[in-house]
Amino acid sequence: MVQIFEETLDQGFFAPQRFEGEIADCEVAGSIPSDMDGVFIRVGGEFYYPPKFPNDAPLHSDGYISKFRFKDGRVSYQGKFVRTPRYQSNLAAGRNQFGLYRNPFTDDDAVKGVNGTVSNTAPMVHAGRLFTLKEDALPIEIDPVTLDTIGFHDFDGGWKSETFTAHPKWDPLTGDMYAFGYEATGLASDDVFFYRVDKHGNVAHEIRIKVPYVSVIHDFALTQEHVIIPFACYYTDMEQLRAGKIHWQWDRTLPSMIGIMRRDGDGSDLRWFRGPERCFMHVFNAQSVGNTVTLLAPFYNGNFFPFFPNIDGSPWDPSRAQGFVRKYTFDLGSRDDSWTEETLFDTPIVDLGKIDHRFMTLPQRIAFTTFADQTKPFDRERAGDTGRAPVNSYARFDLAEGKMTSFFAGDTHSLQEVSFVPRRGSSEEGDGYLIGTASDLAEMRTELVIVDAQGLEEIGRVYLPFRSSTQVHGYWWDAEELGLAEKEAQA
Amino acid sequence: MVQIFEETLDQGFFAPQRFEGEIADCEVAGSIPSDMDGVFIRVGGEFYYPPKFPNDAPLHSDGYISKFRFKDGRVSYQGKFVRTPRYQSNLAAGRNQFGLYRNPFTDDDAVKGVNGTVSNTAPMVHAGRLFTLKEDALPIEIDPVTLDTIGFHDFDGGWKSETFTAHPKWDPLTGDMYAFGYEATGLASDDVFFYRVDKHGNVAHEIRIKVPYVSVIHDFALTQEHVIIPFACYYTDMEQLRAGKIHWQWDRTLPSMIGIMRRDGDGSDLRWFRGPERCFMHVFNAQSVGNTVTLLAPFYNGNFFPFFPNIDGSPWDPSRAQGFVRKYTFDLGSRDDSWTEETLFDTPIVDLGKIDHRFMTLPQRIAFTTFADQTKPFDRERAGDTGRAPVNSYARFDLAEGKMTSFFAGDTHSLQEVSFVPRRGSSEEGDGYLIGTASDLAEMRTELVIVDAQGLEEIGRVYLPFRSSTQVHGYWWDAEELGLAEKEAQA
Repeated sequence: MVQIFEETLDQGFFAPQRFEGEIADCEVAGSIPSDMDGVFIRVGGEFYYPPKFPNDAPLHSDGYISKFRFKDGRVSYQGKFVRTPRYQSNLAAGRNQFGLYRNPFTDDDAVKGVNGTVSNTAPMVHAGRLFTLKEDALPIEIDPVTLDTIGFHDFDGGWKSETFTAHPKWDPLTGDMYAFGYEATGLASDDVFFYRVDKHGNVAHEIRIKVPYVSVIHDFALTQEHVIIPFACYYTDMEQLRAGKIHWQWDRTLPSMIGIMRRDGDGSDLRWFRGPERCFMHVFNAQSVGNTVTLLAPFYNGNFFPFFPNIDGSPWDPSRAQGFVRKYTFDLGSRDDSWTEETLFDTPIVDLGKIDHRFMTLPQRIAFTTFADQTKPFDRERAGDTGRAPVNSYARFDLAEGKMTSFFAGDTHSLQEVSFVPRRGSSEEGDGYLIGTASDLAEMRTELVIVDAQGLEEIGRVYLPFRSSTQVHGYWWDAEELGLAEKEAQA
Repeated sequence: MVQIFEETLDQGFFAPQRFEGEIADCEVAGSIPSDMDGVFIRVGGEFYYPPKFPNDAPLHSDGYISKFRFKDGRVSYQGKFVRTPRYQSNLAAGRNQFGLYRNPFTDDDAVKGVNGTVSNTAPMVHAGRLFTLKEDALPIEIDPVTLDTIGFHDFDGGWKSETFTAHPKWDPLTGDMYAFGYEATGLASDDVFFYRVDKHGNVAHEIRIKVPYVSVIHDFALTQEHVIIPFACYYTDMEQLRAGKIHWQWDRTLPSMIGIMRRDGDGSDLRWFRGPERCFMHVFNAQSVGNTVTLLAPFYNGNFFPFFPNIDGSPWDPSRAQGFVRKYTFDLGSRDDSWTEETLFDTPIVDLGKIDHRFMTLPQRIAFTTFADQTKPFDRERAGDTGRAPVNSYARFDLAEGKMTSFFAGDTHSLQEVSFVPRRGSSEEGDGYLIGTASDLAEMRTELVIVDAQGLEEIGRVYLPFRSSTQVHGYWWDAEELGLAEKEAQA
């Protein structure tokens, strides 16, 4: 991930392209499993027009949604920009009128009052509808066949937060979605609203809480009983925003915080745990057993994002931006507000991790992510020297056996986030496929790799004839979850 | 052109891509003249699926239409495959079911009776409608806003030929279109039907003739009085087609033929002139003055296409595949059936030439084309060594002054066909812009160059972030000719 966020988003493989593309029948090497009937949908972004400020966050790039449609052993591809209000008004003007990441005080006067979300973080499917997400705004609904933008969605007015996380969770036993919005009542507000949205898309339960300080709550965890709310050190307030600063500053003197409360309560049982400096971005999964809550998460040691400056003026320290598979344990029966942290594997990993989502909230032993395997070759002559180890491999962690196995994508390749696809008819945890895009830095094209999720052998590879827009998050959905067969027939 | 037709259509810059793309606001260097309100539309092709036979003609690739829309100093781009019956049935099957170029006897049984045209040669706009053309079938109408395929068009039944040339001509004084179809009554038939289609799109006049032998009549010329019909040495008949051969064989023992007849007659005045071996593909323009007809054309010395074999078994001779600006003179008052040929400039050129189309059929002095300027540098290290001189320059020929001037596109660039855009408000011949795409072989991307058509200085350049599908022919149309403003507003 560092390689994406440092200097390469505006050059080389990730240079902006502005184009929207479609391939009816992609070129394939190997084979496409015939039981894969569904979509791999990716959301990421690129700056359609260059940022107004050179120190802006790459996270501020314009949202782009792309879709690999698998059916009958063939794959089609489609990619489109999300028509956010920002995209539309910038396109009309022919330039970027929006300032620093989530700081409207730095926007041009011409776009004052225009929602500046870029909706570039993750896709979501719920109740048969497709959305793009960014944690500073509501979901934007997208037509799953054409990828055309439909517009902001507030669940028929039931969703009261002005914002919606990019990482909702699902209870696989009920199909209900749990999600939240932070800065829920406006810029730098300390309100967080949690919701349960039933499987039909109706808001069924709300919890309103306050946070001790306003920080990135990028992800959270759900158990059968609790919600777990991690944030740490990133900080904002109206004063620094009015002063024209980027939305987040890193303040390592602030405690790392993890809040835990009942998922069906009213928030009055919320308990805050505190710990030393960490950077909390993504989680794998969590469970509640009696008074014990455990959280599996690939957390970083310190500030991961070089473009969110350290508030003490110290330079960004890449050695702190390392993530590991970690287990956090909380004792709700104790008055102690600390947690225990175990690092389960000593291999540094990328924090974009996945589990077999059918085991979300439930006992689970398999986790997947990407990492830089430095024992593998890298053809610097053909791929170009990026000055660091490429993210060239998938890792499969078996927590029960304490065993890590891996898949190597190629000696000119850099992998984006991995996704898990369950094998049809099998309910065994982790039985299925791993898929994700690889950037072939030599051929300057994007490939989709399909790997057996148990043996980690390659099954097939889909070649795009171009560099696809970068991905933040991607997920697989079976065709039925989107009613795709009917919607495609109507289109 | 040789570089396109020899080996590079299936590899390197011209490797098939299968993708359809759109760019709402292209990246530009320099500036886009604000008086350019219209479209540059290109038609070419790529093999969506590999050819059934390795010796098939690159001319058999699947038609692709692309559009650069100029408006308000900005440019958008769009590209789509033409949904021919062949494209549709191949996509359904997931492979190429069609055999050799224009030989249905070599097609799979599954597609017997399916029109195999690839509609990959040229765009046409007439009576406010957009079409793609290929000389073996009817025009295919295309939506000028979406580039979606509408279907075959026979001018309300008035067009009786089964085929339609890729090179219709217009009388600028009336707006009427003159066009023809050869093999008009079926495969290898010796019927040629000529038509005048008025400016409203209605067939107004028909002439039916027979040819002495069945050959490529790829282009023709129109004067205020006559039509001029050149063909030479390429040959087909049902016997060689049934034997499974490619549509054309080169027989240099056949005479080169140029037929001339009145454009408003019944064909009974048709006169055939005969000459030595030449390869007649494209023309610039022609005029009738009294009994003298003159034809300006960039004709080749011999067989231009290596994939259409010499019938005598001799190998293809690249030294004969050289074209020059040539003038042919015919004396209709004489009984002699020969012509005089003058080579006006000794620079070998690409035969894809253009004039200021407002002077078609009329006295005209300026002609444009591309050529390989071997005095200019070529960066083989960055662009790759193709083993031949790149087509790196536009040439402007002033016939009155006998003067050639040129524009050099860059030391890693290869140019496709040039097109002329008249300057708004000026009626002076050749006053306007030259536009066309350049393949940047180092960056592996397509660029559109915009050049002053008189001084040959570069004005601007539009960058696509990808290799665009190859072009055969492209033309500029002002927005009004397609009623674009209204059609875009409705879309």
